[in-house]
Amino acid sequence: MDKKPQILARHRLAETRLFRIESMDIRFSNGVERTYERLVPGGSGAVMMVAMFDDDRFAMIREYGGGVEDYTLTLPKGAIDLGESMRDACLRELQEEIGYGAREFIHLKKVSLSPSYMSGGIDLVLVRDLYESKLEGDEPEPLELVEWRLSELPELFARDDCNEGRVLAALSLVQQYLAGRYPGDPL
Amino acid sequence: MDKKPQILARHRLAETRLFRIESMDIRFSNGVERTYERLVPGGSGAVMMVAMFDDDRFAMIREYGGGVEDYTLTLPKGAIDLGESMRDACLRELQEEIGYGAREFIHLKKVSLSPSYMSGGIDLVLVRDLYESKLEGDEPEPLELVEWRLSELPELFARDDCNEGRVLAALSLVQQYLAGRYPGDPL
Repeated sequence: MDKKPQILARHRLAETRLFRIESMDIRFSNGVERTYERLVPGGSGAVMMVAMFDDDRFAMIREYGGGVEDYTLTLPKGAIDLGESMRDACLRELQEEIGYGAREFIHLKKVSLSPSYMSGGIDLVLVRDLYESKLEGDEPEPLELVEWRLSELPELFARDDCNEGRVLAALSLVQQYLAGRYPGDPL
Repeated sequence: MDKKPQILARHRLAETRLFRIESMDIRFSNGVERTYERLVPGGSGAVMMVAMFDDDRFAMIREYGGGVEDYTLTLPKGAIDLGESMRDACLRELQEEIGYGAREFIHLKKVSLSPSYMSGGIDLVLVRDLYESKLEGDEPEPLELVEWRLSELPELFARDDCNEGRVLAALSLVQQYLAGRYPGDPL
């Protein structure tokens, strides 16, 4: 099973402003052939941040999600612009979404939404040493900044309006990192 | 901001075997109008399971992901068939993917892949009281069963081949549940 399947052909099935759907004809090492479909995001990647006000308090935002057609409690995040470094993307998105800049950025992990069906991923970053600084973003309405505490993660995770797998992942990694149990790379 | 935006129109942009892309014309409560795109999955939902062999050891599978074009270490998961209960879907997928049945199923949370861009979600379930039982699934090649320990989650999360946000989320919730800090609902 460690021998990767062979990709026999790729086809573009559909493309819209935001999404591209591809199919891939695949032959596994045991000879079985399948046609897979997957989503290929455009752009240069994306970042999601846990921005700490102190050792316990961090920033969440309340934002409308068109996918679930409701407001959800999520972490500041955004696309990396073409030619922009991951650190610069974090610094820009933070100022646009919560009105803070920062001096310390620690990369924790790149996660995939669905390894089966989506290429690409999002980089999870811990951000510290914040200072007030505001940039105008492209949000259709102002985002509401909500403070939460790492010491109250279970209460957050139990909320119906906090329902994004990678948000739970990012916060759990930050908790492990701050406990000295997980590695991080300064950006 | 608590007043939900009004959805003025919906359009189907593209549809393939697995994916449907919709656009929505939205008017926010401040009058700003935007066109959003989102993915609408078909089917009746999906489940992802943390199946415990004892208080520490749980089942992972090594599976080829067409999205990332590589093998990844993930949790047993699958679609809920039409008319099937969540519990029955868990029981069937477990037998197909790791060769075990189970007697105890505890629902922890429904998570979204991306509240902004995808409707639907996946239900995270803790599974206990396992017994050996095998069903044939539709996998193109046998899945490799890999045992891991809750006491070694940081080491798992640091691996490049374990990179699915909702896998990290499910395991973190199980750890909180077993510590008595997070609620669960028996299925």
